[in-house]
Amino acid sequence: MITTDICIVGAGPVGLFTVFEAGLLKMRCHLIDALPQVGGQLSEIYPQKPIYDIPGYPEVKAQELVDNLMKQIEPFNPSFTLGERVDYLAKQDDGSFVITTSDKTKVHAQVIVIAGGLGCFEPRKPVLENLENFEGKGITYMVKDPEQFRDKKVILAGGGDSALDWTIFLSDVAEKVTLVHRNETFRGAPDSAAKVFDMANNGKIDLILSSNLTKISGNGHLQSVSMKNKAKEEITVDADYLIPLFGLSPKLGPIAEWGLNIDKNAIEVDTTDYSTNVERIYAVGDINTYENKLKLILCGFHEAALMCHSAFKYVYPDQKLSFKYTTVNGVNAF
Amino acid sequence: MITTDICIVGAGPVGLFTVFEAGLLKMRCHLIDALPQVGGQLSEIYPQKPIYDIPGYPEVKAQELVDNLMKQIEPFNPSFTLGERVDYLAKQDDGSFVITTSDKTKVHAQVIVIAGGLGCFEPRKPVLENLENFEGKGITYMVKDPEQFRDKKVILAGGGDSALDWTIFLSDVAEKVTLVHRNETFRGAPDSAAKVFDMANNGKIDLILSSNLTKISGNGHLQSVSMKNKAKEEITVDADYLIPLFGLSPKLGPIAEWGLNIDKNAIEVDTTDYSTNVERIYAVGDINTYENKLKLILCGFHEAALMCHSAFKYVYPDQKLSFKYTTVNGVNAF
Repeated sequence: MITTDICIVGAGPVGLFTVFEAGLLKMRCHLIDALPQVGGQLSEIYPQKPIYDIPGYPEVKAQELVDNLMKQIEPFNPSFTLGERVDYLAKQDDGSFVITTSDKTKVHAQVIVIAGGLGCFEPRKPVLENLENFEGKGITYMVKDPEQFRDKKVILAGGGDSALDWTIFLSDVAEKVTLVHRNETFRGAPDSAAKVFDMANNGKIDLILSSNLTKISGNGHLQSVSMKNKAKEEITVDADYLIPLFGLSPKLGPIAEWGLNIDKNAIEVDTTDYSTNVERIYAVGDINTYENKLKLILCGFHEAALMCHSAFKYVYPDQKLSFKYTTVNGVNAF
Repeated sequence: MITTDICIVGAGPVGLFTVFEAGLLKMRCHLIDALPQVGGQLSEIYPQKPIYDIPGYPEVKAQELVDNLMKQIEPFNPSFTLGERVDYLAKQDDGSFVITTSDKTKVHAQVIVIAGGLGCFEPRKPVLENLENFEGKGITYMVKDPEQFRDKKVILAGGGDSALDWTIFLSDVAEKVTLVHRNETFRGAPDSAAKVFDMANNGKIDLILSSNLTKISGNGHLQSVSMKNKAKEEITVDADYLIPLFGLSPKLGPIAEWGLNIDKNAIEVDTTDYSTNVERIYAVGDINTYENKLKLILCGFHEAALMCHSAFKYVYPDQKLSFKYTTVNGVNAF
């Protein structure tokens, strides 16, 4: 059992900064995230994309912001459980909580902060018979290690940046790359789309447009994928791997069962301290909702600061909060 | 008459970032500040001090943060009136305002945002007879242009960093520098204090400790300053200039007369949009107050974002606000 003062559900930018504000008040934090790395959407979806609306940064790459936040909270030595989804919450007699993850990790905390962004991101999946039978056996929704595809026959499906970027990247790794897209044009960056068309013209990849996936087959492991064009002509392509890249769909997940007031997939909070209707549970960042809420990272930072000052009373019930500005004393680790 | 959508009173970090949030909604801003440069306290009081609690910056020098904010708002082309204090506010028949400054500059705006930090900073002054007669005639509370003191006899008074730093700096510029301090030890950086003691031992400056200023004399312009030590012995020193550096004291100033609800020198706001009790006047940053208010720059950033979304209806009464994330489209100037 991991023991901490504050358990932060979600290690995106707002969850990470919560560690800093908690640390200034000498509260320790443990973070849990379903993704295998910190940074939330920023690291998972658009690490190299520039962000323009972080105050004081005319432009910063998403991953750079995450790296800087990690450096900023380092003095407070947070601990992490990554790649595990938060599943159960059990209230203890003394008011504290025990959280259990999908991998049965248990975390005991005085206070829970939900900084879950838009929720657990789950890949949008194609509607195909027997899909789940091939998941992990040839069908994968994320490219975690490109080497997995070396000298293999790979089919990618989708029309956004992920589909284009991985098609370009894997064309140098895989034996054969086929990109299937339901339209004639791509949603992704024009540069990348142009490159993909070029590669198709030069025979480096196969490009199958205006077509939808219709069937997957194999014997234990994926062996072929079928698709139909607008004229309803079906073709079947040999494949060791199918990577559908249709985007991620946010889901609130098991948190929806914790008795919190939920409004349209977001958790209602009191803006005086961003507390939820359940005592000792707070929600900050994109996952909360209140009048005039803006889903901006900078708003989550503010919410985290006020939330930590409110949580202090649960972690140190006998102490009076004495807040010192960092400009006066710097950041003192504890 | 200057015409703008939003007149921001105070060009500190929060006032500056308000330009960004307003700009994203195509609202133009004019900023007014009593200080001769932007950046508020950060640039005036501690430009070289590191700040540790700006989210995403493990450490940033105050002036560097201001410079970055200036760069961030550049696409929105804000205009500035600096070195002038906001004095009068006149409500127009159509609901808009005309602000008049201490130098009679007039700004017409649909919306006023008070981002005044701790208010106008006024230098703490020594209690001396005829003080005001010599202000600007030998007595000055800020060193704006060190060349003014070249080859002059200068007396500085105070025990903080400003007094120490300017004593060291002016010792190379002035004919003679005397530092008067009421205690035996200094509040400023130990390094600077050591250097000042060294310079006094080497005869480069005169150091008069445990003494208080008692009298100033001159004929039209300052000619001498008297001071008394603990033993009540009075000495008089010839001086062209006296620079009392006793710190700055915040004052709300004429804003206090605008009919706003004030609580302990701060302006009460509604946290749903950081509006004051006067329609079309908002207050953001350290100058506002609400339940659980934290005087943190990062909180002001959030307040500015929500405030701008609320102000949109006054600037564009016939338009529906359509908000686009900068990660999708970048920052488009207007």
